[in-house]
Amino acid sequence: MNDEGYMKLAIENARAMKGQTAPNPMVGAVIVKNGRIVGIGSHLKPGEPHAEIHALRMAGDEASESTIYVTLEPCSHVGKTGPCAEALIKAGVKKVVIASLDPNPLVAGRGVTMLREAGIEVVTGVLEQESWEMNEVFNHFIVHNRPFVTLKAAMTLDGKTATHTMHSQWITGEKAREDVHVLRSEHQAILVGVQTIIEDDAELTARIPNGRNPIRMILDSTLRIGMSAKVLCDGKAPTWVFTTNASSPEKRTALEALGVKVFVVGSHEGKVKLTDVLQTLGEHAISSVFIEAGGTLNASFLTQQLVNQVIVYVAPKLIGGKEAPTFFEGLGMASMTNAIPLRKMTASVVGEDVKIIASF
Amino acid sequence: MNDEGYMKLAIENARAMKGQTAPNPMVGAVIVKNGRIVGIGSHLKPGEPHAEIHALRMAGDEASESTIYVTLEPCSHVGKTGPCAEALIKAGVKKVVIASLDPNPLVAGRGVTMLREAGIEVVTGVLEQESWEMNEVFNHFIVHNRPFVTLKAAMTLDGKTATHTMHSQWITGEKAREDVHVLRSEHQAILVGVQTIIEDDAELTARIPNGRNPIRMILDSTLRIGMSAKVLCDGKAPTWVFTTNASSPEKRTALEALGVKVFVVGSHEGKVKLTDVLQTLGEHAISSVFIEAGGTLNASFLTQQLVNQVIVYVAPKLIGGKEAPTFFEGLGMASMTNAIPLRKMTASVVGEDVKIIASF
Repeated sequence: MNDEGYMKLAIENARAMKGQTAPNPMVGAVIVKNGRIVGIGSHLKPGEPHAEIHALRMAGDEASESTIYVTLEPCSHVGKTGPCAEALIKAGVKKVVIASLDPNPLVAGRGVTMLREAGIEVVTGVLEQESWEMNEVFNHFIVHNRPFVTLKAAMTLDGKTATHTMHSQWITGEKAREDVHVLRSEHQAILVGVQTIIEDDAELTARIPNGRNPIRMILDSTLRIGMSAKVLCDGKAPTWVFTTNASSPEKRTALEALGVKVFVVGSHEGKVKLTDVLQTLGEHAISSVFIEAGGTLNASFLTQQLVNQVIVYVAPKLIGGKEAPTFFEGLGMASMTNAIPLRKMTASVVGEDVKIIASF
Repeated sequence: MNDEGYMKLAIENARAMKGQTAPNPMVGAVIVKNGRIVGIGSHLKPGEPHAEIHALRMAGDEASESTIYVTLEPCSHVGKTGPCAEALIKAGVKKVVIASLDPNPLVAGRGVTMLREAGIEVVTGVLEQESWEMNEVFNHFIVHNRPFVTLKAAMTLDGKTATHTMHSQWITGEKAREDVHVLRSEHQAILVGVQTIIEDDAELTARIPNGRNPIRMILDSTLRIGMSAKVLCDGKAPTWVFTTNASSPEKRTALEALGVKVFVVGSHEGKVKLTDVLQTLGEHAISSVFIEAGGTLNASFLTQQLVNQVIVYVAPKLIGGKEAPTFFEGLGMASMTNAIPLRKMTASVVGEDVKIIASF
């Protein structure tokens, strides 16, 4: 196997932990000595050792004079288990092959420098793009201190999210709905407007085998939420409510008595100020949020350019209607020249539906 | 090469004539003798010999005791160059391998019977589905005596065909627009409402190298079209106008003086009756029509279930807007249970856009 082969294995071991490392990145490592793999490791969850440490432990004495392939630059800071660069030096590693550098511009390259100063050969950039894209959520979080925001929508082939009477069950097929539950489980938080709770009493859980439920975020500027809403009472996942000072302090207290976290943030045109919400999430180490909201709340997020990725399921159905809603309402742009451009778009088939993933 | 290999070649030779055989089907033939191909043929254009005849001519004396692979059942009727079954018998062909039978239920199997009665071995069903799908337009036409209708739309990822101010240049990228011109050249007719002519002075031609221009069909119930419209004056392709008896006879005469064909058909809610239009097209041997209309005319075609295929280009752009138009307007369905289902859907990437092809 060549460098890329070993790095590919390290990336696969990293990616296998998708959804369980947040707010940390996914990282994998492979240690090779004399053409034989002597250790593999992955970062499994926050608070536990980094990938390199696991791999070094597995390699034991064999780590000496070995080559380690690691998907992310070894850290140089003293963290919970670090610095890894120091551990590699101590173990007598001869060569370090790195896919991508630390996304934090303030520390990027420091691990490499520390290793080189210790006389270790360092190669960087092997499968760099693949590794970088695997951690785009973490990279965004580390640079902006705000979660990576994914907005999901399901629409008919003619672009509608419901009929003109607001009937919407179901737009997509079973496979696509299952896929959405996988996405929920891969995000730390799910976010909706209170209207979704009032209309659907949505549970917002990941209803798949071994699905991790995301933390449920409800935007409710005046606290219209009913005290018997499932998200408040079912105990299936934490629920956080974002409101403004226009809401009743008594209701806030009542919600808190149910174990709900209530955040009073700034307001914008009578609504919860979205940048405040994202900043609060960042402060609470929430690195990814999944928006499953209606066209009006979506419009606020999209026009304020707070969304990083849009995932649209397109169903093989037509419902028509000039008044039928779409997933991006509001006033909208007046000219095509003001359209919000998406950088890239991929399409795949999920069951009977087409899934389009688009990034800004 | 085995039966499928020869048939594949016959299908490739048939498909190469896409767009030039209408209203006839695409048909290819390969003649094999002692493991050597001795003749190939395709139906090139209406009025010219069928594929079998071309292949027989190429084979000459070698046709005797040969096997012929033909994508469509040889005809048994006396047509412009037929019947082909008789020609095969005369040429002394030993075996005939057929992909699909004649789509016309009234004559399907007759060619096979004629061949078998002459003592020729006949095998059917080799690459049947591939051959059948290649000629879905012709198959539809022959059974229903009406053109196969393809409706095309271009929308942003959020389902809009224009901004709320009706600005729409451009939704899709250059590659997708080029792809539309290819589709135009593959259809016998292109159809729009008069509003498209009034607003855009659309030319409705296939602006690609060697593009065949489709016949331009304008639905104009009261003849609001301007006499200087490009489709009336540019001479680039025939133009047919469909109107009702609510239009002025003088204007009809004026249009006819420009060389335009004018059809006065029935009306439905003050508009040109669409089933009359399609019937008229069928009577004039138009087997395929490409609709590039606005959301209101589209709604009429779709709710009346007159469309066979929908092709939607989805652009990596968001424009938002509750009032922005979609490609299927009108009242629309009230319940998801009344959604018009699409049988199958495929997605591919064309330049920067996603192209979805969906069939009823």
